[in-house]
Amino acid sequence: MNIIDIINKKRLQQSLSYEELDYAFSGYLRKEVQIYQMSALLMAICINGMNDQEIIDLTNIFINSGDILDLSSVEGIKVDKHSTGGIGDKTTLVVAPIVASCGVKIAKMSGRGLGFTGGTIDKLESIPGFKTSLTSDEFIQELKDLNMVISSQTKELTPLDKEIYALRDVTGTTESYPLIAVSIMSKKIASGADKILIDLKVGSGALIHNMDDAKKLATIMQKIGHEFSKKTEIIISNMDTPLGKNIGNSLEVLEAMEVLKGDFDNDLGSLCILIATKLIGLAKNIDDDAAKKEVLEVINNGSAYNKFLAFVKYQHGDINALKVSDDTITIRSDQEGLIKHIDAKMIGEISMLLGAGRKNKDDLIDYTVGVVLHKKENEYVKVGDVLCTLYVNKIKNDFDIKKAFLIE
Amino acid sequence: MNIIDIINKKRLQQSLSYEELDYAFSGYLRKEVQIYQMSALLMAICINGMNDQEIIDLTNIFINSGDILDLSSVEGIKVDKHSTGGIGDKTTLVVAPIVASCGVKIAKMSGRGLGFTGGTIDKLESIPGFKTSLTSDEFIQELKDLNMVISSQTKELTPLDKEIYALRDVTGTTESYPLIAVSIMSKKIASGADKILIDLKVGSGALIHNMDDAKKLATIMQKIGHEFSKKTEIIISNMDTPLGKNIGNSLEVLEAMEVLKGDFDNDLGSLCILIATKLIGLAKNIDDDAAKKEVLEVINNGSAYNKFLAFVKYQHGDINALKVSDDTITIRSDQEGLIKHIDAKMIGEISMLLGAGRKNKDDLIDYTVGVVLHKKENEYVKVGDVLCTLYVNKIKNDFDIKKAFLIE
Repeated sequence: MNIIDIINKKRLQQSLSYEELDYAFSGYLRKEVQIYQMSALLMAICINGMNDQEIIDLTNIFINSGDILDLSSVEGIKVDKHSTGGIGDKTTLVVAPIVASCGVKIAKMSGRGLGFTGGTIDKLESIPGFKTSLTSDEFIQELKDLNMVISSQTKELTPLDKEIYALRDVTGTTESYPLIAVSIMSKKIASGADKILIDLKVGSGALIHNMDDAKKLATIMQKIGHEFSKKTEIIISNMDTPLGKNIGNSLEVLEAMEVLKGDFDNDLGSLCILIATKLIGLAKNIDDDAAKKEVLEVINNGSAYNKFLAFVKYQHGDINALKVSDDTITIRSDQEGLIKHIDAKMIGEISMLLGAGRKNKDDLIDYTVGVVLHKKENEYVKVGDVLCTLYVNKIKNDFDIKKAFLIE
Repeated sequence: MNIIDIINKKRLQQSLSYEELDYAFSGYLRKEVQIYQMSALLMAICINGMNDQEIIDLTNIFINSGDILDLSSVEGIKVDKHSTGGIGDKTTLVVAPIVASCGVKIAKMSGRGLGFTGGTIDKLESIPGFKTSLTSDEFIQELKDLNMVISSQTKELTPLDKEIYALRDVTGTTESYPLIAVSIMSKKIASGADKILIDLKVGSGALIHNMDDAKKLATIMQKIGHEFSKKTEIIISNMDTPLGKNIGNSLEVLEAMEVLKGDFDNDLGSLCILIATKLIGLAKNIDDDAAKKEVLEVINNGSAYNKFLAFVKYQHGDINALKVSDDTITIRSDQEGLIKHIDAKMIGEISMLLGAGRKNKDDLIDYTVGVVLHKKENEYVKVGDVLCTLYVNKIKNDFDIKKAFLIE
């Protein structure tokens, strides 16, 4: 077997065997296949695709490239959720305490963000003292004690995914639904949960731009889940416009807390309730109505909010010390009309430029900055109405954020 | 402009502007674009193609990446020929003396071979003392004195082609007709000739496997030539079976001399006469019949052969010292029937394994080894008839060469 023959096969739209995929990908991790050969293969996969068997084989290779977390010592069904990312998405911070309050165990390993805003781990680290790095034992103990835990990776799970993801990021090969499916599902399966819910974002601010690709991705992710005996449900949600009102790390923690305190009659709240409902339905084998009833109950009786506070405390965070910048810029509308669109990508980019996200992997995040939207899509504004507030710190530019608002 | 956007455009089948191609390719030569990014872009080009304007733009970028040889001090029309390579192709050694004897100036820079058998430069270096490395001044002086010159590169012509060619070789991106056209035509144009003849090989032993691709390649190479005011003619010739009888460096020089001495009533001779005819027609603006008459005359009156001897002497070669191994293995047929096919690729590989070609760039070539075919396609053989002779030296295996002969 040799790597050039393997690349040539994929270039010529032929499918690759398990052995060929393993030779290429495991060989890359062992540095036997060169980085320029892997990037050529990734591009050929991107353009020519992979069939279901290739996708399942590659998922297997990714999973077996590292450790697999064993949660069997924790009783009951363990669930996990994953969002494919988007501007203002803080659903994990809301959903996990709800699910845990309903008696379902949710074990989640999250990542840091690259670009736009931070990832869940960055958001949690905006809480002073919060410890995101746990050992496997600590992870399992917290899951037993609280029914929930969120940490950065406890072990070396799917190191191959890490390498391939980083390479895709710099070679124009991110937008490939087979590679996205393999990346997400291998991580989720290696993380040890029994049942998985994927929130697939579609729109201009997401990796997937159209419903056609989203449906293909959903189908193959469910097939992978089935293959590995991990029941997988997919919801598809919109990411043309930011989710919720706050974008930026501390700001997003604050908004998540508002939802948990009962302010859920909005886009963010609705999505959180939907995801929590699905996860509880998955774990308890009950229908949506019954699951949703439980969700609303734990919000309304305060137990979900209290679970959040207990979780922050358990991981050494001091929620009262959470800070947002007190240096703000108020952005007012200079026209009157209906807000037809607020562009997620532009808001995300400005938030990143203010310091809330990373341009490069090793950039430091400024937790205190970000954007708060005062108006959402389909609201009517008059001249002088506040559109949004920028929370700024070192970088005080307003970056012409008005361009993100389409008012007619 | 950024490289990831450029890669993404090509991945999505969009065409690239001159500026984008320059950013990517010149940036790669300056090491501003990473090798894994270039290989991803090359794969996207391989699969999604390039339109005529992109191919012409990229040729321009390749030409301008290095020096351009100025032959204007040499009077008259200067021609050049290029073959896309194949097993047993020693046409340059025959054609150049013929053309020069007819009063047409032929200036050729050749390469070393990678794989199979050597390139023209390797073949010439099998002549003891032969100097292939000339300065620009020496190159031009010889062209004035002899009407012909063959050397390895005199200056840094198209360094970008060298880099890209090496990368394509290890990333499964060799079989792309736009990239082949750019590579060949940029080198030929930078080499300074006025008119160009390309011998495009098609078949199992060539880079191009089918007539459809060959015709596309021919069309675009002519367009490129037209764009740069270098009239370009293309002939398409077969490379399913070896050209001529001798494969291996010294052996090929000997066979070329036989043709020049008048033994041209065979596949090699016919092709050499065709190429020489076309080149003379191009240079003198005469029709094929008139040109062919000149070709036959300079062979028959010995002036082409004498030109070859003068050329070898001019570049310090001692033709009488040319050696082939006296250690030979005779391969006899163990069946009777018609030779339906002799596989070029297999013969080439065995020749390489015997030492006549390079597996890796820095391998040393054994000039004295190779294969001599005693039977060609469509000849009838009986049991015990000699099929071929292997000229061996350090490696004495016969590599089951009978498999290359299909006898029915």
